[in-house]
This record gives sequence, C-alpha cells and structure tokens, in this order.
Amino acid sequence: MPAKDRYHETVKNALIKDGWQITADPYPIKYEEVKLAADLSSQRTLSANRGTEYVVVEIKSFLAPSAMREFETALGQYLIYRTFLEVTHPDYRVYLAIGSTIYRTFFQRVAIQLILKKYQVSLLVVNLEQEEIEQWLT
Amino acid sequence: MPAKDRYHETVKNALIKDGWQITADPYPIKYEEVKLAADLSSQRTLSANRGTEYVVVEIKSFLAPSAMREFETALGQYLIYRTFLEVTHPDYRVYLAIGSTIYRTFFQRVAIQLILKKYQVSLLVVNLEQEEIEQWLT
Repeated sequence: MPAKDRYHETVKNALIKDGWQITADPYPIKYEEVKLAADLSSQRTLSANRGTEYVVVEIKSFLAPSAMREFETALGQYLIYRTFLEVTHPDYRVYLAIGSTIYRTFFQRVAIQLILKKYQVSLLVVNLEQEEIEQWLT
Repeated sequence: MPAKDRYHETVKNALIKDGWQITADPYPIKYEEVKLAADLSSQRTLSANRGTEYVVVEIKSFLAPSAMREFETALGQYLIYRTFLEVTHPDYRVYLAIGSTIYRTFFQRVAIQLILKKYQVSLLVVNLEQEEIEQWLT
C-alpha cells in the first residue's frame, strides 16, 4: 500500500477508535460547477459524524520533499473546501489531519503558526503509530 | 524555453511595457525561519515598482491538467506570501498574474469567484500574445 494511503487508513482508524462513524470516504465536495473529489483524485478527504457533530477531514501526509510546498497546497485546498462547505453544509467543521511528528516540528514554526492563526485552520493531530487522535485544535 | 518560463518572461515584458521597473527576479520572500524562494525553486515570483508603487507578482501558467489543482496551490501560495509581506513590507501589494484566456474561462466560474472575493485575491490579467497588461483587479 502506498504511504499516502497508509496515512489515510491510519486517520480513519483513529477516528473510528474515537467513536466516529465514517459517513463518506472519499467525501465528494461539490459547489456549483466544481466537483472537487472528481477533479482531485490524488487527495484524500473523508466525512464522519459522532452524534450530532459532523466533520470533514482533509488528510495530508507531508511526505513530499518540501513541507512548505505541501503546506501551500494543503492551505489552498482547506480554505476552498471550507468556503464551499460554509455554503452547502454550514454545520460541518473542516479539519486538516496531520501526523504528530510534523505537528511538533514544521507546524510549530512562527511563520506557520502565523498562517494557521490568520486563516483559522483547524488541525486534527494524529499519532500515526498508535492510530490515535492526539488533539483537535481549533 | 519551457512554457512555464515563457509565461514568466511574458508577464515581465508586459510589466516593463506598462512602465514598471523589475526590482527582483525572482523575489525572495522571507519571514522568520521560512525562505520561500529557496524552498520553492519551481515557482516564479518577481517584484517591481513604478514611482512609489510596489508590487510582488506571483506568476501562474495554468498549464497543468487540472486547473482546480493549480488554483489550490496558487491560492495557498498567494495567501502565505501576502501574510508574510503584510508583516515585512506592508506597502507592497501582491498580485496573482494569469493569462487572459484562463481568466475568461476558469476564473469566471461562480465557485472560483466566491473564493477570490472571500480571500480578496488581486489578479493581474495579462494578454499573453500581445505581452500586455489587460487588467489589474483588486
């Protein structure tokens, strides 16, 4: 299984362990003429619910040589998804799922923290070895 | 010359024709630990001034198979650059430079217009054949 897909399964298992039910995998985000899941088959998004809470999770492996480049794409995708979902499903919260190692390194940089705060990016930090959710950060 | 670099030269020539002086090419955006030009050698950014006006221009060719995917990366980069520049050079305006054909097609979609408006993305629309600036859109 490619590493990218392993991350996807790991995040999914962590959510299930945390009491979430996966409702769509992948989750096809649609708004007007844009169908994101179809257009972007290489990326991974899923939706889940726990009771009355609904989340859409964008999973990013950060396995590319440049974490900054992956972050740029992740940020663009995240903000586009969130904007569309605010219109179509205002009760859904959107999270960017990342591993705990990249969270403790790259994501702690002052420059990255500035961006996360300015654009109010919600993070789901997953311990990839334990397949467990560490933190929901909003 | 690869097509990506042709776009870069075209946008640069259009700016010069419009009375701008190119001040850095590429323009190295730096903020705290992040040096963007070094980290992202495949992308193109330049700075220019005309009298007391200063601009930083991020050039996007939209030659990739998926315009949506290129837009996601472009949006992420644009917002990151703008956030850093707001701190380091608050007098600079940041523009995303695109060709007039992609502007009249993909960028007119309702979904894309929603994103551009929400995140106040400034566009520099360039006629690539004439090497001329068509519009500055803020």
